[in-house]
Amino acid sequence: MREKSKYPSRREHTRPLQAREPRLSPPDAAGPAVIVSRRASDRLREGHLWVYRSDAEELLPALGAEGLVNGSIVTLLDTRRIPLGSAIYSAASQIALRKVSDTPRLSREEYLTDVKARALQALAVRKPMLTDGTDSCRLIFSEADDLPGVVADKYNDLVILQLLTQATAQDDMRELLAETFAVALSPATILERPDARIRELEELPAPNPTPLFTTADTPDTARFATVFHLNGLQFHFDANSGQKTGAFLDQRLNYAATARYARGRALDICTYQGGFALHMAKVCDSVTGVDQSRSALEVAERNLDLNRSQLKAQVDWVEADAFELLRAYDSDMEKFDTIVLDPPAFAKSKRAAEGAMRGYKEMSLRALRMLRPGGILVTCSCSHHVSLAEFTATIASAAADAKRHVRLLETRAAALDHPEVLTLPETAYLKCLITTVD
Amino acid sequence: MREKSKYPSRREHTRPLQAREPRLSPPDAAGPAVIVSRRASDRLREGHLWVYRSDAEELLPALGAEGLVNGSIVTLLDTRRIPLGSAIYSAASQIALRKVSDTPRLSREEYLTDVKARALQALAVRKPMLTDGTDSCRLIFSEADDLPGVVADKYNDLVILQLLTQATAQDDMRELLAETFAVALSPATILERPDARIRELEELPAPNPTPLFTTADTPDTARFATVFHLNGLQFHFDANSGQKTGAFLDQRLNYAATARYARGRALDICTYQGGFALHMAKVCDSVTGVDQSRSALEVAERNLDLNRSQLKAQVDWVEADAFELLRAYDSDMEKFDTIVLDPPAFAKSKRAAEGAMRGYKEMSLRALRMLRPGGILVTCSCSHHVSLAEFTATIASAAADAKRHVRLLETRAAALDHPEVLTLPETAYLKCLITTVD
Repeated sequence: MREKSKYPSRREHTRPLQAREPRLSPPDAAGPAVIVSRRASDRLREGHLWVYRSDAEELLPALGAEGLVNGSIVTLLDTRRIPLGSAIYSAASQIALRKVSDTPRLSREEYLTDVKARALQALAVRKPMLTDGTDSCRLIFSEADDLPGVVADKYNDLVILQLLTQATAQDDMRELLAETFAVALSPATILERPDARIRELEELPAPNPTPLFTTADTPDTARFATVFHLNGLQFHFDANSGQKTGAFLDQRLNYAATARYARGRALDICTYQGGFALHMAKVCDSVTGVDQSRSALEVAERNLDLNRSQLKAQVDWVEADAFELLRAYDSDMEKFDTIVLDPPAFAKSKRAAEGAMRGYKEMSLRALRMLRPGGILVTCSCSHHVSLAEFTATIASAAADAKRHVRLLETRAAALDHPEVLTLPETAYLKCLITTVD
Repeated sequence: MREKSKYPSRREHTRPLQAREPRLSPPDAAGPAVIVSRRASDRLREGHLWVYRSDAEELLPALGAEGLVNGSIVTLLDTRRIPLGSAIYSAASQIALRKVSDTPRLSREEYLTDVKARALQALAVRKPMLTDGTDSCRLIFSEADDLPGVVADKYNDLVILQLLTQATAQDDMRELLAETFAVALSPATILERPDARIRELEELPAPNPTPLFTTADTPDTARFATVFHLNGLQFHFDANSGQKTGAFLDQRLNYAATARYARGRALDICTYQGGFALHMAKVCDSVTGVDQSRSALEVAERNLDLNRSQLKAQVDWVEADAFELLRAYDSDMEKFDTIVLDPPAFAKSKRAAEGAMRGYKEMSLRALRMLRPGGILVTCSCSHHVSLAEFTATIASAAADAKRHVRLLETRAAALDHPEVLTLPETAYLKCLITTVD
């Protein structure tokens, strides 16, 4: 539903790295090593972690080309053969190499030691976030936690692990992380549930459906569903439903911030399983949650049932296309005090960004026309192909067309369990503008 | 000290608007009217409020050119003579016209009625901000409150008014606003204290030094100094000191946010009168506030005295150039847990932005080198010539050079009493990044 992946699509015919005669014998490349282009080495020196296949210029086969199998750890060299660190290699992804260490000639053992230290560091960063009625968060977010190819989420007592590259989707990594989580978090169950799209891109095998860890008597009796808590509200999570969870963890603090401003009659466009809608229902008079997925709204209704006692608003769910519904409400002269727009990523690629901007503008324009004076517009974009500056300009353009004076109250991003690393611009994907409309 | 003005510098020889024969008699221009360029009309339709002198193409003198005196209200027309609203005219500023209404042919009386309504709206927006140990804020912020040429601040029981254009620096406006503030806020004293630089640009006369309003028995016994409160801390304000206040109102919520993360040994670069330093002193072990202005640090010391009972840290002030001091501390291998960088605007013009970026980068690089693992870097830019994207990229570049993993905790802007209007990009001038440095 939401595009969080930063993995470009695989090319039809990926060019294998060619082993060539080394021009000089590299003293720093006792294992497999790859010379990367000037562009790639500049990028790595700027703090990025990726080398695209087209930037991997030359393979230096100290161990022979046969040393470079899927998931290998290789040494990165610049064109002057100065080592830049070590990377994990993927034969399938367009991102052929993901840097995992400043140290060249890293062994798998050293790599796993680093992974464990970084996983513990990631958990330490999350610890203060698991308070105030919140028992769920993203535990590890790949590059943002210096752990390329590893994603893990905690939903109450379930931990969901995703191993997303050939170098991480291996049994030693599974065991290491499962043990680390089991000790640090005492979960009931740890499951591996990789994103199907990425598994396909990376040509990964289907994971074992049984838990990596469970406190149940047998794996068969382990629970795969739970009720978890965000900001004091309850939500259903079912690891086997095939649906992503609609209470997006990255929006947690934006849900809470929206509830600080929301009031009156509220509309939640692309509510999915009711994340924004239920947070607004604590403070608004009425909330209408709109989504085109009936199954998502069925979960939203079940989530509503979990929270009724603490909600003030009358909540309704409407199954509809967002654009069609906004158009219909606008021509019916419907008026709201608070509107949230949280569409799925319109721009799945840089090329699609222009169309995405048109989509954001149309949605915002309709919403602005329907807001009463002093109303609140919350508008989100989760595509990293649309920058904050572009997104803000798009909403400004809608404001001008609607002839509304729009003041920015907050410019928000993902919650801190989805860290934004300054030298990795791709980690800044979620934008959330909270505005007041005169 | 800090560049908040969005007024470009005056040209040496401003071209007077030329009265020309109208090509057709404009039915919508019963008062003075100006035809603006396509570029300017597009900009106005995008929600902006400014017309530069070079975009004011033709004066239609329904009342003759002599009708267009400093401070006139004129009707804006596009090149097809379609009215775009009314603007106030300045003979001195490069921004010749500032739109004040969508209504053409606005009379001065109607303009003052609008001003009163917008001033009351601005005060209503501020009301909820004056809680929790805060009695001070910017009451009116010019274009951001749809009141070009009017700025007003509240420091406890003093209100400081700035009338910054020829059309607003007039007695009817003084009386209207003084009465509005007196009724709405019950201040002890209302003073006019325009920014000297802008007064010169706009060729405004020196204002009356006596209060516009006072509850004192006579104007002579009115107080011109007060102690005001921000986030529960106390600060001195003296309207006659000639110094700007160092507790910048626009940083109020950034002070509070920084205090949520700050810890250990803290350094506040360009502390001025101690705003960030005193907020950090509530939670840190030691705080060093650095500024090159001795008189500012003397106020900082007096502010420290006001708050000692609630501060935890040992606080020291150092009179020094920020760059020199950072270089010296760095070579002495000094280490800190929290560093705040809040320099005055390095970029006073778009052309100066590149040099500004070098300044931000050098400061950040030094600070990053001195931060202990897990440390907090708070870095601010108050120049609207440097965009948030450029500023963030500059800090990222420093992070790469320092080989530090910098995670963004919060991207912050000015407090809500300095509203950021989406269609007026110039209102977004203050950037504040709170980061954690591994």
